[in-house]
Amino acid sequence: MNQVGGIEKYGFQALVPLETAIAKYFPHFSALGFEDVLLEQALNRILGEDVIAPINLPPFARSAMDGFAIFAKDSFGASPSKPKLLDIAGEIAIGNVPQHELNEGQAMEIATGAPLPRGADAVIRVEDTKVEGSRVKIFQAIPPQRNVILEGEDVTAGSLILHKGEEIRPDHIGLLRSLGIQKLKLAKQPRLVLLATGDELILPGKPLAPGKIYDSNNLMNSALLSRYGAVVVTQELLPDDPAIIRQEVLTGSNNMDVVVCSGGTSVGKKDFLPQVLQELGEIVIHGIAQKPGSPILLGKVGGKPVICLPGFPVANFISIITILGPLLRYLQGALKRDPRPIVFGRIAKNVSVKGLGRINYLRVNLQETDTGYVIVPKKLSGSGILRSLVESDGLVEIPADVEGLEEGEIVKVFLHLR
Amino acid sequence: MNQVGGIEKYGFQALVPLETAIAKYFPHFSALGFEDVLLEQALNRILGEDVIAPINLPPFARSAMDGFAIFAKDSFGASPSKPKLLDIAGEIAIGNVPQHELNEGQAMEIATGAPLPRGADAVIRVEDTKVEGSRVKIFQAIPPQRNVILEGEDVTAGSLILHKGEEIRPDHIGLLRSLGIQKLKLAKQPRLVLLATGDELILPGKPLAPGKIYDSNNLMNSALLSRYGAVVVTQELLPDDPAIIRQEVLTGSNNMDVVVCSGGTSVGKKDFLPQVLQELGEIVIHGIAQKPGSPILLGKVGGKPVICLPGFPVANFISIITILGPLLRYLQGALKRDPRPIVFGRIAKNVSVKGLGRINYLRVNLQETDTGYVIVPKKLSGSGILRSLVESDGLVEIPADVEGLEEGEIVKVFLHLR
Repeated sequence: MNQVGGIEKYGFQALVPLETAIAKYFPHFSALGFEDVLLEQALNRILGEDVIAPINLPPFARSAMDGFAIFAKDSFGASPSKPKLLDIAGEIAIGNVPQHELNEGQAMEIATGAPLPRGADAVIRVEDTKVEGSRVKIFQAIPPQRNVILEGEDVTAGSLILHKGEEIRPDHIGLLRSLGIQKLKLAKQPRLVLLATGDELILPGKPLAPGKIYDSNNLMNSALLSRYGAVVVTQELLPDDPAIIRQEVLTGSNNMDVVVCSGGTSVGKKDFLPQVLQELGEIVIHGIAQKPGSPILLGKVGGKPVICLPGFPVANFISIITILGPLLRYLQGALKRDPRPIVFGRIAKNVSVKGLGRINYLRVNLQETDTGYVIVPKKLSGSGILRSLVESDGLVEIPADVEGLEEGEIVKVFLHLR
Repeated sequence: MNQVGGIEKYGFQALVPLETAIAKYFPHFSALGFEDVLLEQALNRILGEDVIAPINLPPFARSAMDGFAIFAKDSFGASPSKPKLLDIAGEIAIGNVPQHELNEGQAMEIATGAPLPRGADAVIRVEDTKVEGSRVKIFQAIPPQRNVILEGEDVTAGSLILHKGEEIRPDHIGLLRSLGIQKLKLAKQPRLVLLATGDELILPGKPLAPGKIYDSNNLMNSALLSRYGAVVVTQELLPDDPAIIRQEVLTGSNNMDVVVCSGGTSVGKKDFLPQVLQELGEIVIHGIAQKPGSPILLGKVGGKPVICLPGFPVANFISIITILGPLLRYLQGALKRDPRPIVFGRIAKNVSVKGLGRINYLRVNLQETDTGYVIVPKKLSGSGILRSLVESDGLVEIPADVEGLEEGEIVKVFLHLR
């Protein structure tokens, strides 16, 4: 195949808008299914079903303070100068069940978190009391339910507490654990092979021969994709050899949920991936209207997604956050396909856009002020300039039909993932 | 010890402002030191030294496009109607070194990413050329450096690329890998034991006997603390037995970097932790002016931090994000002690504060609009109400001397960590 032929045969017909690409590509695939997972392993996983509370939380009315459980009305009229006097009818330690019911005119000593005795409807803080022999002085009037956490006040048994498609956060784990939940039905995590292609690529540890560069995409992608819930099973460097690439894509599509290539996606002589995908399966999208990150190839082999990312590292990174990452979340049924935090702020200066007709990803820094963020555009750009990402806090997406940004304009920034 | 004695002996002298507590407590300890770690394991770890680029990146001038390497001046005057004609002097594939120098009047076919031949100072895109036998027509004039990525354009050898104390992100891994870096000197991760105390606590899997609750703090804390770089080595449930608690705190302080207790921090009869800390070491701070999360105990045993968090889960969570989490980052020498993303927005309605004199943590939701976030306060509060966290997106910290927030006011929201 020669260069001109290559362009004719596999070339970009026209760059496809990002939204169109997603709408056209994702429905080729469905969610991967579910598995039971121990709560201990559930952090950052996607819920495969709604979670219903099996019990009330707390499971009994508890005291919120150290003090005395009382009938609130027994405190009415009490004040520091005119305390009320109640009989001490026992003591409730935390973890114990009150032995008997409380009667009017009585108080039971109670610890924070201990169950309220039947009859009692309030707790007076120890600071507002004074014990005198078998009786306790109450120095303050309190209303019913004061310092009491009612049974089911946090969660009522049978209520929906988390939705299918939510990502499990640390505080979710706390709530699920409180409810005694041990296992969850979670979305299966996509299993990936990463194939970096290119005769110029070598692994660190080897000396840098002339014309060679260290591959950075496989390891960067592995780290980044883990934040989207993927499990990278293997990573390989492949030469620009169509037979080898074909074999590895085929093996990957047989054994993995998603095959991720990088490099070789464009229309040059050694860009074999379009050819390989056409031979093994189909190309759904070739070329997306974004900058950097346009030479991306979305294909399908044996029913599996095969995504070929551009080789230049920034283009590679952008393609992950715009397409591959969201696809991985889609395959897990996530409600939120883009996990990046979003902030708003005012742009510090005018920005003019060069590649009109494509979404432009502007690298920016955040400066915090009392009234919000000032968004400072970075000078650096270019799909080869990794430092432009490393030194930035996030990206502003400038729509394809927007010529630039005006100083002071409010913009939306997608922060880089940790 | 009786309750009143307990209050006198171990009680809160006065709640300490959060900033004061940090300023007083953290300097008791120093960073844990460093270890060499493979780049493959470096994600989210804290750098123990500045990283200096060992090589130029890219290591040679590269083509940014598929096309022809030329002398830019040979294209001057070229146009679609009046192309210039150059001799094709060979071909440079990616990963190969140009065999000979380019001379004026010549062009060399070049692939994206391939090294520029000596002499050439620009690359004309294949789209702007046409091959005719051994010559190529140039249809456009281009300036020097067009479509060329200069040697060292991304990173110059010897330049500082990452700072000591930075947290490694996925894009950092990409840059480090590009530079051939295999190992990093990273901060040691704090090793922790988690001790949840309380006679009322049981593990899920057992039936919920009357007066008992499932412990949620250990597992929630384990998940949350992992986001601060900690390694939780063991988690235990302990009864309210001072001898057992004393033994476990002692063992923990001998074997771990930090001992984290939860529960038993207040001034009630069964709150043994103040007593245990005084016996084994010292109490530096007892009680912080924040709501929820005031009954926190910051101590020191055998030179190690022993932090006792409140037992109620929300208070527990707040104490981690305000004190324990930042301490863990401090022990790793992190530049940024609080990793939570911060957003700004306008509060949707008036909020009045009850516990004046303490920082109040308001749970909020974010609503995205074209001009930024509207911040919606949650009705739920209370240190026992985990659902108030789970259903919120983040927290607004209302300073101790602020009586409330006014509708439309700009507030700062700390988002919950994933």
